[in-house]
Amino acid sequence: MSHTMDLRTLKTPALLLDRPKLLANLGRMAARARTLGVRLRPHMKTAKSAAVARLALDRGAEGIAVSTLAEAAYFLDHGIRDILYAVGLAPAKLDEIAGLAARAGESPRASYDAPLSARGADITIVTDNLPAARAIADHPATHRVLIEVDTGDGRLGLDPADPELIEVARAIQATGRSRVLGVMTHAGQSYDARDLEHLAGIAEGERSGAALAAARLRAAGFACPIVSVGSTPTATHARNLAGATEMRPGVYMLGDLFQAGIGSCGPDDIAVSVLASVIGHRKKDNAVILDAGALALSKDRSTEKLANGDCGFGQVGDLEGRVMPGVTVVGVSQEHGRVSAKSPLPFDAFPIGGRVRIWPNHACITAAGHDVYHVLDGGTEVVAAWDRCRGW
Amino acid sequence: MSHTMDLRTLKTPALLLDRPKLLANLGRMAARARTLGVRLRPHMKTAKSAAVARLALDRGAEGIAVSTLAEAAYFLDHGIRDILYAVGLAPAKLDEIAGLAARAGESPRASYDAPLSARGADITIVTDNLPAARAIADHPATHRVLIEVDTGDGRLGLDPADPELIEVARAIQATGRSRVLGVMTHAGQSYDARDLEHLAGIAEGERSGAALAAARLRAAGFACPIVSVGSTPTATHARNLAGATEMRPGVYMLGDLFQAGIGSCGPDDIAVSVLASVIGHRKKDNAVILDAGALALSKDRSTEKLANGDCGFGQVGDLEGRVMPGVTVVGVSQEHGRVSAKSPLPFDAFPIGGRVRIWPNHACITAAGHDVYHVLDGGTEVVAAWDRCRGW
Repeated sequence: MSHTMDLRTLKTPALLLDRPKLLANLGRMAARARTLGVRLRPHMKTAKSAAVARLALDRGAEGIAVSTLAEAAYFLDHGIRDILYAVGLAPAKLDEIAGLAARAGESPRASYDAPLSARGADITIVTDNLPAARAIADHPATHRVLIEVDTGDGRLGLDPADPELIEVARAIQATGRSRVLGVMTHAGQSYDARDLEHLAGIAEGERSGAALAAARLRAAGFACPIVSVGSTPTATHARNLAGATEMRPGVYMLGDLFQAGIGSCGPDDIAVSVLASVIGHRKKDNAVILDAGALALSKDRSTEKLANGDCGFGQVGDLEGRVMPGVTVVGVSQEHGRVSAKSPLPFDAFPIGGRVRIWPNHACITAAGHDVYHVLDGGTEVVAAWDRCRGW
Repeated sequence: MSHTMDLRTLKTPALLLDRPKLLANLGRMAARARTLGVRLRPHMKTAKSAAVARLALDRGAEGIAVSTLAEAAYFLDHGIRDILYAVGLAPAKLDEIAGLAARAGESPRASYDAPLSARGADITIVTDNLPAARAIADHPATHRVLIEVDTGDGRLGLDPADPELIEVARAIQATGRSRVLGVMTHAGQSYDARDLEHLAGIAEGERSGAALAAARLRAAGFACPIVSVGSTPTATHARNLAGATEMRPGVYMLGDLFQAGIGSCGPDDIAVSVLASVIGHRKKDNAVILDAGALALSKDRSTEKLANGDCGFGQVGDLEGRVMPGVTVVGVSQEHGRVSAKSPLPFDAFPIGGRVRIWPNHACITAAGHDVYHVLDGGTEVVAAWDRCRGW
């Protein structure tokens, strides 16, 4: 990969990461976790970067969540040993998970009942159903398991009051090898909330649902040391997390236009953008064509759902990071992006070969198209290149 | 990457490529090119695979088109030497292009006027504007250039009748180093056509516009040995390509639901699919949750535009490749896909840990999330792994 030291010469398209904004985002969420009295286990599915994870851990995060086993292996390779694989288990993955846990260097039978801080690292997995629970129990390795409960998202998870919750827990421990360590939930419906009162209510439902499930498991004899909740919107707006032990926001690290639109961050907190070059003008159409399209920006249209915040495929700004109000990427093909605005574009700001920055709708999806962050210290100089993990 | 030899054990999610369907698609388009009397220069932006390119070249394709310089470098590394970089030039890329052309092993000043088949390989670039033309002329290396014309797509390209066409050609050759080799156009509006008569009309506009531009350049003294047209829909439905010398379809190699929906291929011609595992049931919501979401399938919603063909984020089928009519991926989050249907789902067909295949809306974008094709010979055995190129 070609890599130069300034946004005026860096090869385009390229993913940029503003380190001061990243650090502010990390610090703000760490403070939230302290205020709420829970551990912060950042979900690394957004940043997918060991450098970013290390900064978060240095600022008070304890352990991480991941969305793929490729991430688990990557972060283990970088010395991070407390990993929650937070996507519901496909039982065929148990061998690979056991292999990763073995790499983590700890006897898989050791010290589940010791305080978390005294234990070595491990891979914790998640399920919500009896067939997977039985597969876990029957697997020759020992697994650490959270049971997923649904607190309104409707994706995965048992109802916290469902009798099957206890059956699943018993099934997991049926052979005496694997262990239920608690519950997890993700109130993803927070992405549909549009006001802070509504968000606080969703956060309260997430907390109370997880706490109820944990209480029921404890009443049935399962210790449940982990009660894991969280999304960036609920982590940002929860008023208390009594009964939860940790939260797992992820996109807060980078921020994006959608999160800004629903109040999880300010527009100036977005740490990630895509650098692109102007390759054509369509003056009669009031449009400029960039060399960043569907692969560099993604086809995510999250901001379409925001009443006054539809930014097309991204918000356009200048190299110094100043937004051009109303100027967005209105269309993409694979490697072309079309910039336009309701008012006449200032074509002088878009000479052929000129460069712009594009703030993404959805950082998780846009960043996934890139293998590296080009890191800025707030200006236009590229001070580092941080790799990203990808695949499954 | 873990890699096993059957769809029942392959790690999920995974990108699958059915080789017999691929070969049939390659053969059909090669026959089209012969019938139409033009060279076939397949656009490798879809397949991004040297193995696929080689199969196409073995079946009569001559040269390739690419959408990124990363692709150009990758295919050069695999011995393919006639490469059209078919995205409008950002002038800062000229140094890298010159470096790639030098790697191609030919003196950059050699034999532009020799028959194409007698020349060595090279990188041909594209522009549509005077600033880039001047940058090409001023660059110390020699470049081979096509001028892009717009035949209705409205993305990049000069109007074929625009006086600036001749100015751009003169500017490119102003210093005597670089050379205009002809014109190219892409009638991308063919993706919006819904009947064959309309498609044939768009193909005719693409042909006639390119031929007009070439005739005007020839009248101004530019030889124009290359007149390059094409998209998969227009290549499939053109009635004649008189005046064109080559066509550049790409997605025809893999096919997808959108191309099937507009008649570029049949539903059984789609050679690419995504393997996924069932990780949860939402029986009360008539839904099944898979471990393939926005990153494995993409957020492309091309089929939303088809009157009766909206397939959500993909069409679901069984391991043997049999479609389940009406069963689609109705929603995605990063690593979760939600399968549902208007009629009750056959939950017995979706046991936890069971596997399905998903046909994509848009092969170019879905495949871009994956680093490898797991190749099938029509059954469920994985007979090869073919790498893919990515990035810029």
